[in-house]
Amino acid sequence: MSFNSFGHVFRFSTWGESHGPALGAVVDGCPPGLALSESEIQPFLDTRRPGQSKFTTQRQEPDAVRILSGVFEGRTTGTPISLMIDNVDQRSKDYSEVSKAYRPGHADYAYDAKYGLRDYRGGGRSSARETAARVAAGAVARLVIPEVTITAHVVEIGGDRAERFDADEIGNNPFFCADAAAAARWETLVDDARKAGSSLGAVIECVATGISAGWGAPLYAKLDSELAAAMMSINAVKAVEIGAGFEATRLCGEDNADRMRPGDDAPDFLSNNAGGIAGGISTGQPVVVRVGFKPTSSILTPVETITTDGEAVEISTKGRHDPCVGIRGAPVVEAMMALVLADQKLLHRAQCG
Amino acid sequence: MSFNSFGHVFRFSTWGESHGPALGAVVDGCPPGLALSESEIQPFLDTRRPGQSKFTTQRQEPDAVRILSGVFEGRTTGTPISLMIDNVDQRSKDYSEVSKAYRPGHADYAYDAKYGLRDYRGGGRSSARETAARVAAGAVARLVIPEVTITAHVVEIGGDRAERFDADEIGNNPFFCADAAAAARWETLVDDARKAGSSLGAVIECVATGISAGWGAPLYAKLDSELAAAMMSINAVKAVEIGAGFEATRLCGEDNADRMRPGDDAPDFLSNNAGGIAGGISTGQPVVVRVGFKPTSSILTPVETITTDGEAVEISTKGRHDPCVGIRGAPVVEAMMALVLADQKLLHRAQCG
Amino acid sequence: MSFNSFGHVFRFSTWGESHGPALGAVVDGCPPGLALSESEIQPFLDTRRPGQSKFTTQRQEPDAVRILSGVFEGRTTGTPISLMIDNVDQRSKDYSEVSKAYRPGHADYAYDAKYGLRDYRGGGRSSARETAARVAAGAVARLVIPEVTITAHVVEIGGDRAERFDADEIGNNPFFCADAAAAARWETLVDDARKAGSSLGAVIECVATGISAGWGAPLYAKLDSELAAAMMSINAVKAVEIGAGFEATRLCGEDNADRMRPGDDAPDFLSNNAGGIAGGISTGQPVVVRVGFKPTSSILTPVETITTDGEAVEISTKGRHDPCVGIRGAPVVEAMMALVLADQKLLHRAQCG
Amino acid sequence: MSFNSFGHVFRFSTWGESHGPALGAVVDGCPPGLALSESEIQPFLDTRRPGQSKFTTQRQEPDAVRILSGVFEGRTTGTPISLMIDNVDQRSKDYSEVSKAYRPGHADYAYDAKYGLRDYRGGGRSSARETAARVAAGAVARLVIPEVTITAHVVEIGGDRAERFDADEIGNNPFFCADAAAAARWETLVDDARKAGSSLGAVIECVATGISAGWGAPLYAKLDSELAAAMMSINAVKAVEIGAGFEATRLCGEDNADRMRPGDDAPDFLSNNAGGIAGGISTGQPVVVRVGFKPTSSILTPVETITTDGEAVEISTKGRHDPCVGIRGAPVVEAMMALVLADQKLLHRAQCG
Repeated sequence: MSFNSFGHVFRFSTWGESHGPALGAVVDGCPPGLALSESEIQPFLDTRRPGQSKFTTQRQEPDAVRILSGVFEGRTTGTPISLMIDNVDQRSKDYSEVSKAYRPGHADYAYDAKYGLRDYRGGGRSSARETAARVAAGAVARLVIPEVTITAHVVEIGGDRAERFDADEIGNNPFFCADAAAAARWETLVDDARKAGSSLGAVIECVATGISAGWGAPLYAKLDSELAAAMMSINAVKAVEIGAGFEATRLCGEDNADRMRPGDDAPDFLSNNAGGIAGGISTGQPVVVRVGFKPTSSILTPVETITTDGEAVEISTKGRHDPCVGIRGAPVVEAMMALVLADQKLLHRAQCG
Repeated sequence: MSFNSFGHVFRFSTWGESHGPALGAVVDGCPPGLALSESEIQPFLDTRRPGQSKFTTQRQEPDAVRILSGVFEGRTTGTPISLMIDNVDQRSKDYSEVSKAYRPGHADYAYDAKYGLRDYRGGGRSSARETAARVAAGAVARLVIPEVTITAHVVEIGGDRAERFDADEIGNNPFFCADAAAAARWETLVDDARKAGSSLGAVIECVATGISAGWGAPLYAKLDSELAAAMMSINAVKAVEIGAGFEATRLCGEDNADRMRPGDDAPDFLSNNAGGIAGGISTGQPVVVRVGFKPTSSILTPVETITTDGEAVEISTKGRHDPCVGIRGAPVVEAMMALVLADQKLLHRAQCG
Repeated sequence: MSFNSFGHVFRFSTWGESHGPALGAVVDGCPPGLALSESEIQPFLDTRRPGQSKFTTQRQEPDAVRILSGVFEGRTTGTPISLMIDNVDQRSKDYSEVSKAYRPGHADYAYDAKYGLRDYRGGGRSSARETAARVAAGAVARLVIPEVTITAHVVEIGGDRAERFDADEIGNNPFFCADAAAAARWETLVDDARKAGSSLGAVIECVATGISAGWGAPLYAKLDSELAAAMMSINAVKAVEIGAGFEATRLCGEDNADRMRPGDDAPDFLSNNAGGIAGGISTGQPVVVRVGFKPTSSILTPVETITTDGEAVEISTKGRHDPCVGIRGAPVVEAMMALVLADQKLLHRAQCG
Repeated sequence: MSFNSFGHVFRFSTWGESHGPALGAVVDGCPPGLALSESEIQPFLDTRRPGQSKFTTQRQEPDAVRILSGVFEGRTTGTPISLMIDNVDQRSKDYSEVSKAYRPGHADYAYDAKYGLRDYRGGGRSSARETAARVAAGAVARLVIPEVTITAHVVEIGGDRAERFDADEIGNNPFFCADAAAAARWETLVDDARKAGSSLGAVIECVATGISAGWGAPLYAKLDSELAAAMMSINAVKAVEIGAGFEATRLCGEDNADRMRPGDDAPDFLSNNAGGIAGGISTGQPVVVRVGFKPTSSILTPVETITTDGEAVEISTKGRHDPCVGIRGAPVVEAMMALVLADQKLLHRAQCG
């Protein structure tokens, strides 16, 4: 209900703008007694941090998180955990152009239409900097589901797909790519886009293993639905699919059905087109979601637009931007997966003990 | 939060199983003073009703809706509107096979894993019959947004895409298809699948026009996010995209940006890759969502599975089923669109007056 | 958030008006596997049922409940439980007076001010008949907390207080009074009010024993806060206190403190001024709440009011009414206590395992 | 649902402990375009601030608020408003006694029972310092309802009632008392309690004028219910009544009914026993709520308790405490009133336009 909160019993709210003094998240409903300090959170923020390669924005943000509440003697107390990250590299620049015209693809026009005003400095609330708060909250969520392993990787940039999955490769390149060959191709692809003042979209796949069967619920609380809402809430995301997703619509029923054979403790599924979710409830298979990020809207190439007074102009977005905002989406997608799953684990415990 | 409710200020809850005495919806938060009787709702239910062609299940349900509360002298009173639809054609059959083994692709195993028991008659709560309740609620939602026109049509069945859009065609064929040629092809396609004891998936596109700029909100309340959750909550849906969706990830930034030129009251957008939503907020352009339905899991073709005791068996689902459950999804997708938009209109009015 | 729902993970919504065809409740989030049939619910409805003595309204309603969903082979399935009660004795009468003037103390004027229209037949949604739906839902809630015993009794009518507590007496008189002497006095008191065309208020005390320490949460989720909201949501209730309540404000700190001595499994508290709740969380002592019901607003005595056109008139409410609506509040208060506690038990399990 | 949030469309969440580095509130759903700076908030915090007389705790906290987000060029943007207040006077002391034994009347035992651990420094999350965050959020809420005037005053301390109401007196004494004579008596009363190592309870009355008829909703969203939950969520509150409250239970129906005579724009009510709320909806009369605060649990007088190991001991609470925590409750009660009303105004606008 709340516009800036997500989750039901494990719930977080975020606040902050691109050019304000800080941003943060308040995590509520966290189980007590979990070992938590800044060092549990910082590594995830470091992964998302800008300025680490030429393929991401050059804004330099240490993204150092501080825990302001909810932890006592190194353990969560069950009360709200306030996490704060200072903004340190909001570059003082001239925003007069952005303040007077709407950047296509951006929230500018829609914000003005809704609120009658907007914080145009760096996109204000609509800036992807907000995702740092999610990543911090997600690190707390992971403590609630230690049995779950979450891996997000970029499977496609600008329409060029990765072909192989080697988990060890993901950390070896600046693209969170599990296919070394694709990563090599993407270096050129992304760099060319950057130099051309253009930008690229991306598709991220996220897999979570170790989830018990039984999380989620039918219909309006389908685990698919929760994940879709979570992923679609990320800046620049315009598409979500679970398991085989759109590809499943092209399979016949007998090929799409994930057949079962007797297993040890659980059924042996012969495929996972359902992405680990049947009837809205986890089956114990890996949960698989794919998320589509549109190309970064901030581009140097001039595009037609109008001013706030309705005059025709062209606008090009100078400043430091990610040529492919989807790349840094990988840690954010992982965080949202963790946040959904932590919440669902607790909800399942509530209803079913 | 509630497992069987959807919406924030305009909110509905559904109840009922495939083989219970009835199913229904309770609509809460409806504005007062709207003209409402059963005749406002019934036409939408008739559109979704089964048994109208050989391409849908032969179960014969009149789906006659009764309004039990919330309306006085033909007008909504602002109090909860209880809608009830009797189940009349629950065929008494032998469910012993389904009760003892898990149908792949169905919720059977997941329900047992979660709840420890399940109503196996016709799928119980996981039956697509529940969507009748959504359609009824959606008809009420439409009264809240009379300025909005919503059109859903099937754009793809079994991987075969419609090529043309002629709104007048949608009502001329049993597929909610806006392309007469495609509809002709699909007759054969679906009939072949049915005869082969197989099933097909489908993709539905839903377009809503007449929406003011300003509905929705940033981030966790992104209109994209609300729509994704709504659509993904429908049975058999595994994929959702807004506007260009996954295709947007393959565009470069300057091609994806919806450029603006001066218009009369509002900007003239030169494209609509964003599907009418920027930064989570409507721009005044048509809102466009595409929804992927997996093939019906109930198929006559035997597939490997296990019994509740873990023994290997094969199962085939007899009975009356839709060979392509996505077809009848069109009125359901429309209903969910209406339910989201009615809620968002009221939420926008709450915050922004 | 929803206007006609209550609860978080164990949640119910009610619908229906005094003179509609039926009223009902939808219970969501109920744990699966609980034995449930109409016979688990009916006794509680019978206790609340009107027309059982001359001290309550003479409207004759069997209040027979039907379970329409959520139960399979005698057990809850974890899906929504739809409960319906037909209205059978809506007497056809002339409502022209009530339709044209506002009854003081009633919702008439406020409804018109808010909604612009109202269902004036028997009070519409504001009728105390709605409490039948709560009592039905409360009977389900009790199954979630079998370890808890809930007892509500009327401790005061028209300012005349009961002096003794003998639990066995509660069922022996039509006042839910644990003090036989007071019950005898109240016979005269209530009968005199009825004959005089007047009405009386009442105070109900509700005690719940068997609650583990640890339910509830600090501050905005204080168990006191949940109970206050629950009780204040009942028609005609205008006051709620926990434990010593207002009397605690007159004690000094050392007298109000519930001192502790070593006990067997739990502390031995030497008093219970906190009503079993400290810091918003149950302490394991009995939870005690007292609820104030104003006198029935429907009285035969004419009172000054205005018409919907603003003209001065006098109005007297004919028809069948409780001379002391608080009396039949006892089963309703018990139901709300059960509903809050069932929800809190599940919420506690969610966060703390 | 969220344990540390309150409200529906105008919603706030608080975080922070007594001895953490800071505390704060995040206000979500605030309408855009409202003039807001720290100077709009600080005066309310100054009113609540400790250490201003010998009748309140001597802890010295400047309670200087900082706005970290949601405001741009002096106006609210519609995005979350993060408010932070540093803790500066957490006195480093020896907490070993409190860490090892439970203070009666405090949350100590209940927190340990629920969470298995507790931040015992100054009461942690259960400290009344949290109310500073509410007062800050309440100052924002006031901007949403400029037409409403809210006045809280202490009407009773330790059972000694104020007899007169002179609004101008409230600011003239350290007790928020509208009766100069009572304030004079209370000086002795409170000082005696303080010197005796004891404490006193209090009753606060809060009146809000200027509210339109039509805010609130029937039953589970009764304005009475919202106010009761809000007030009962404040530390140390154990009783709430609306209008005549418990006294209404002692009136007969014709005396309790608020009779109406024709007025100019609205009815002229001849009394206000309903406290401005009928059927859960505001009538346009002043909304009146009375709130009972128990005596401060932190007292110097030793009381029997047990250690965390279950041993019998006596404990006395040293340190700086309010001898009557209810006194400083006045600004907090005002803040909660503002927060409820702002939310209800927006909710009413959502449903009824």
